[in-house]
Amino acid sequence: MIIIMKMQATDTETDAVITRVTKEGFKTHVSVGEERTIIGIIGDERLLDRGAISRMKGVDRVVPVLRPYKLASRDFKPENTVITINGHQVGGDKVIVMAGPCSVESLDQMMETAIAVREAGAHLLRGGAFKPRTSPYSFQGMGEEGLKIMAQVREETGLHIVTEVMAPEQVDLVAKYADVLQIGTRNMQNYALLNAVGKTNKPVLLKRGMMSTIEELLMSAEYIMSNGNHQVMLCERGIRTFEKYTRNTLDINAVPVLKELTHLPVVVDPSHATGRWTLVKATSKAAVAAGADGLIIEVHPNPAEAASDGEQSLKPHRFAELMNEIRPIAAAVDRSV
Amino acid sequence: MIIIMKMQATDTETDAVITRVTKEGFKTHVSVGEERTIIGIIGDERLLDRGAISRMKGVDRVVPVLRPYKLASRDFKPENTVITINGHQVGGDKVIVMAGPCSVESLDQMMETAIAVREAGAHLLRGGAFKPRTSPYSFQGMGEEGLKIMAQVREETGLHIVTEVMAPEQVDLVAKYADVLQIGTRNMQNYALLNAVGKTNKPVLLKRGMMSTIEELLMSAEYIMSNGNHQVMLCERGIRTFEKYTRNTLDINAVPVLKELTHLPVVVDPSHATGRWTLVKATSKAAVAAGADGLIIEVHPNPAEAASDGEQSLKPHRFAELMNEIRPIAAAVDRSV
Amino acid sequence: MIIIMKMQATDTETDAVITRVTKEGFKTHVSVGEERTIIGIIGDERLLDRGAISRMKGVDRVVPVLRPYKLASRDFKPENTVITINGHQVGGDKVIVMAGPCSVESLDQMMETAIAVREAGAHLLRGGAFKPRTSPYSFQGMGEEGLKIMAQVREETGLHIVTEVMAPEQVDLVAKYADVLQIGTRNMQNYALLNAVGKTNKPVLLKRGMMSTIEELLMSAEYIMSNGNHQVMLCERGIRTFEKYTRNTLDINAVPVLKELTHLPVVVDPSHATGRWTLVKATSKAAVAAGADGLIIEVHPNPAEAASDGEQSLKPHRFAELMNEIRPIAAAVDRSV
Amino acid sequence: MIIIMKMQATDTETDAVITRVTKEGFKTHVSVGEERTIIGIIGDERLLDRGAISRMKGVDRVVPVLRPYKLASRDFKPENTVITINGHQVGGDKVIVMAGPCSVESLDQMMETAIAVREAGAHLLRGGAFKPRTSPYSFQGMGEEGLKIMAQVREETGLHIVTEVMAPEQVDLVAKYADVLQIGTRNMQNYALLNAVGKTNKPVLLKRGMMSTIEELLMSAEYIMSNGNHQVMLCERGIRTFEKYTRNTLDINAVPVLKELTHLPVVVDPSHATGRWTLVKATSKAAVAAGADGLIIEVHPNPAEAASDGEQSLKPHRFAELMNEIRPIAAAVDRSV
Repeated sequence: MIIIMKMQATDTETDAVITRVTKEGFKTHVSVGEERTIIGIIGDERLLDRGAISRMKGVDRVVPVLRPYKLASRDFKPENTVITINGHQVGGDKVIVMAGPCSVESLDQMMETAIAVREAGAHLLRGGAFKPRTSPYSFQGMGEEGLKIMAQVREETGLHIVTEVMAPEQVDLVAKYADVLQIGTRNMQNYALLNAVGKTNKPVLLKRGMMSTIEELLMSAEYIMSNGNHQVMLCERGIRTFEKYTRNTLDINAVPVLKELTHLPVVVDPSHATGRWTLVKATSKAAVAAGADGLIIEVHPNPAEAASDGEQSLKPHRFAELMNEIRPIAAAVDRSV
Repeated sequence: MIIIMKMQATDTETDAVITRVTKEGFKTHVSVGEERTIIGIIGDERLLDRGAISRMKGVDRVVPVLRPYKLASRDFKPENTVITINGHQVGGDKVIVMAGPCSVESLDQMMETAIAVREAGAHLLRGGAFKPRTSPYSFQGMGEEGLKIMAQVREETGLHIVTEVMAPEQVDLVAKYADVLQIGTRNMQNYALLNAVGKTNKPVLLKRGMMSTIEELLMSAEYIMSNGNHQVMLCERGIRTFEKYTRNTLDINAVPVLKELTHLPVVVDPSHATGRWTLVKATSKAAVAAGADGLIIEVHPNPAEAASDGEQSLKPHRFAELMNEIRPIAAAVDRSV
Repeated sequence: MIIIMKMQATDTETDAVITRVTKEGFKTHVSVGEERTIIGIIGDERLLDRGAISRMKGVDRVVPVLRPYKLASRDFKPENTVITINGHQVGGDKVIVMAGPCSVESLDQMMETAIAVREAGAHLLRGGAFKPRTSPYSFQGMGEEGLKIMAQVREETGLHIVTEVMAPEQVDLVAKYADVLQIGTRNMQNYALLNAVGKTNKPVLLKRGMMSTIEELLMSAEYIMSNGNHQVMLCERGIRTFEKYTRNTLDINAVPVLKELTHLPVVVDPSHATGRWTLVKATSKAAVAAGADGLIIEVHPNPAEAASDGEQSLKPHRFAELMNEIRPIAAAVDRSV
Repeated sequence: MIIIMKMQATDTETDAVITRVTKEGFKTHVSVGEERTIIGIIGDERLLDRGAISRMKGVDRVVPVLRPYKLASRDFKPENTVITINGHQVGGDKVIVMAGPCSVESLDQMMETAIAVREAGAHLLRGGAFKPRTSPYSFQGMGEEGLKIMAQVREETGLHIVTEVMAPEQVDLVAKYADVLQIGTRNMQNYALLNAVGKTNKPVLLKRGMMSTIEELLMSAEYIMSNGNHQVMLCERGIRTFEKYTRNTLDINAVPVLKELTHLPVVVDPSHATGRWTLVKATSKAAVAAGADGLIIEVHPNPAEAASDGEQSLKPHRFAELMNEIRPIAAAVDRSV
């Protein structure tokens, strides 16, 4: 941590800062510049309260030196984390594809979708039983009934299941049926929920908050990991910007940034990141080219009748085309699908 | 709802849209323009799935006509909602001030703060027992112990208490001690939590998500209200923008916008909206001038020692100055403090 | 400037950085932390290339210590700059109000508006002769003809004129007629234009770019000032955010921030910052309460017939109401209008 | 254009709107809904003033139906525009790569870079002689001297030149030396400049404003095209968001969106869109995979000594690696490099 004093800071103010920091067990390095004095702190700054110091008299700014996450950091674990789900390795050489409808609507719909996406080469089945919806008047999901349908579809198709959990008290129930617990974008900083899934032994797909920084995403992963569950997949699903034509803006930069900063696998959700099915193929290819370890894609047998997110869902035959189109891209970056 | 067809849309595509909408019980008005055809829908569009229709062949865009909230809308309830807490009316002529520390740290700290803010004229005491923190390694709040401290301080000072609840399973516990349940910015779209507080009879202070539109804030209020609890105060607490000098950007426009769109009271939080105590006075005055019904302000007897948010907390004597400075502003807009 | 080395940085890499910085005439302070090494630079860092150093091997980040502007900084000139226009002092005790239509449309329209706003108490007349429009098919302004109309209106009403200049080669022409040269939001970083107005002796109203930081606004002021013209007024006119209900988001925080960082006067434009006339009164009051030195407000005798920006223009009688409503607010912050 | 009336709108208000629109020569379709009345306008709405109508009594919102650009729209010209520069076709089957330093610094630097990037397979040489810099104290470019250096390098290497023009009065000078005129991000809405380059017969590389929507980018292209110059390449170079780790956020969605909306070629600038050289390879591959027609990449023989943008420039050997890595990606989307 580096403390930058104001131009007008007095010696007394500078001394007070040094005294406080020293009292808490840290060593300091003081540089007296031509215009300003700078105090460097030596020791694990994560234990110091940046806010409190920045409030002291004469202090202009406090600049952190260390990144605030540790378990999620590649500095502390250089090799990639690989998470195995039903024999498929996320974070390894293969690009893993999760596909399925936004919402579970019926056994027929799930079965039809599952068979189609499996045939096209998908590795995991996605589907929502508990749906976070902006409006209380929209369809809220089938609940446990939906989980049961997915479990039955898994039985018959062999595809393991990714599904969202929305509240701490649902974790046990959802974990009973699901293979991967998904944390939705609106819950990325729902700390009670992060703690709860951190106590399970299920892999977690953690979606980036639509207006969260990459560092905050890693801090949320740190919450889960600090509870003992290190099987976290990070999902870039688009962020909110001033652009209105698309539902969100896919932050493609986040893929290589995350590969630099963390050892955790990175999954991209082109369906939510664009909000328009016509853009899903191009952005899926971009994600694989940029180095994503996986994709999660909305597929519906009849999008115009979907209970939610129809405008961004692919029909099964288009999903099959997409699978065929990403294969050569994966090969071009020395991976397979 | 208005459906705008593509320039190249065929008659068959247009007919398919009309058939589908008619089948669901809506009437249509078709305008054939020089370049495009437009289909107007007559009926309560909240019951139609906009996404599904926008996915139909030949459809360019679907434009909603009605606002998606009803209970929260001034169209349906023109007169202001007034919420009475300990005899203070939020949404009436008086500007209500809630003040106190970010976190409850000890009985002494709370008592000292409470006495100071009451003396300066605050109407309610704020303080956090459960703290949502970006880092799992930061102080997470005192929990029930903190609630008990606040209850004791209420006993002795007469100030009623605003405090945050972070998870559905905490609602009963927090409601046992608190007078106002606060939903934090990261939980604005935690629907399980909104449903839970909607089932209590306590007033709710609903903070706008740092990434949420005004319409989404009103939809979250609609969640609470549709569960039966109509005592909702909306809180503008700053949104996330590209500006880096301040922690957030206070969306002052939101104050008159909310007064237009909804009958619910509007509270402003200048502490979080700026993140710097030096900016709190000026923005508090701006909020009152713009028509806010209340302010919520962080005050700490010793901000440089605060367990959280020290850089944005006022010392008691500065809070007293602030109260003195907003009184003439309130008078200038025909209100009192 | 502070250079933070990577965790894995070698001694050779650290030495290379020190050698380069020393070669350019700077002294360094090195702190070896538990996890990382930090190099502090002593000297005027504005002369060092931050980008080049951050590109050196082993460097994680480079953190600037000094603010990049000097002439605009309150550190270097603590007392307020006061700019006198036709006897009115901007930056002094009075809140200065500039009012008028978005575009000059005719002599009658300008004369009618000028008389009305003068009567209501406005100090300066605004109006656009050269209009930057998003569409090449929209009205582009009357050009020199519009400037002549404004000059004639000044003659008859005594109101001095604020008008936009859009290109370096227009500066002489516009300066011949105008009393204040306005730089529009889209031109805040049009450096050729900033240099050109910096060579005139006319006061400049510099509008913040709709997606520019406060620091960038001050850097643009620095451009003008470094050319010799120190009469710069900064104008907050709303920034672009994800919020869609309003045209822009008025960054009210910017008012007290600018008063801290710079000695230059601060003007607020509530018309563009909201884009809706119904929000102009409330935000004007907020701006004055927050400490703005001036307001610039769009007024049109018949907004529904305006050639541009009709939806955010006030009718003269509403502008008169606004003037009456901001007077007590100004008084509440020890100013007059 | 569709006019949505307020719930409380009176018949008189609705009639006034209809009368006004009819007077201007448009036909209307009126739908009386249960809650609101809607007026559809038939005719070329680009000729109607949306702002003025939205200001009329009883009007809630005005929704445009037609896109505001015509020459740039794929609706009006379905086939791709192909621009030929020195025999290379931008917008055709090949992905065109423009490479070179941010700033021209010397003949040696340019020659060394040109030879290296040509060898690696680049098609065009980029370099800045006039540099828009945030600070007036930063290097502002070599000016005409820099243009002459580039012309000499073209002579010797055969590479044609892309360079920025910053002001209308520079257009003739820059056009004398350059093969492609670049409009920088800060000038995307510098309309005087757009008009000036629209009057030349040189291809234009139009960079998206860091704060501009896709629609605004197309409107700026429309400015150039409406002056007669239809050789416009659109460049996505990253937009400004709340994310702080990268300099900008590459809006990869914009690539397929632009391919849908316009016939003009789409170029991506991964150097500015990330601001970090370590991210340039991954995002270049993403851009090609998403369907970009070209890339523009910063390359410098010695980035740590570059006069500007060193942190985002590739060394020549890394650029050669990048070229080798994008070739299989291009092949995977049926293109070549």
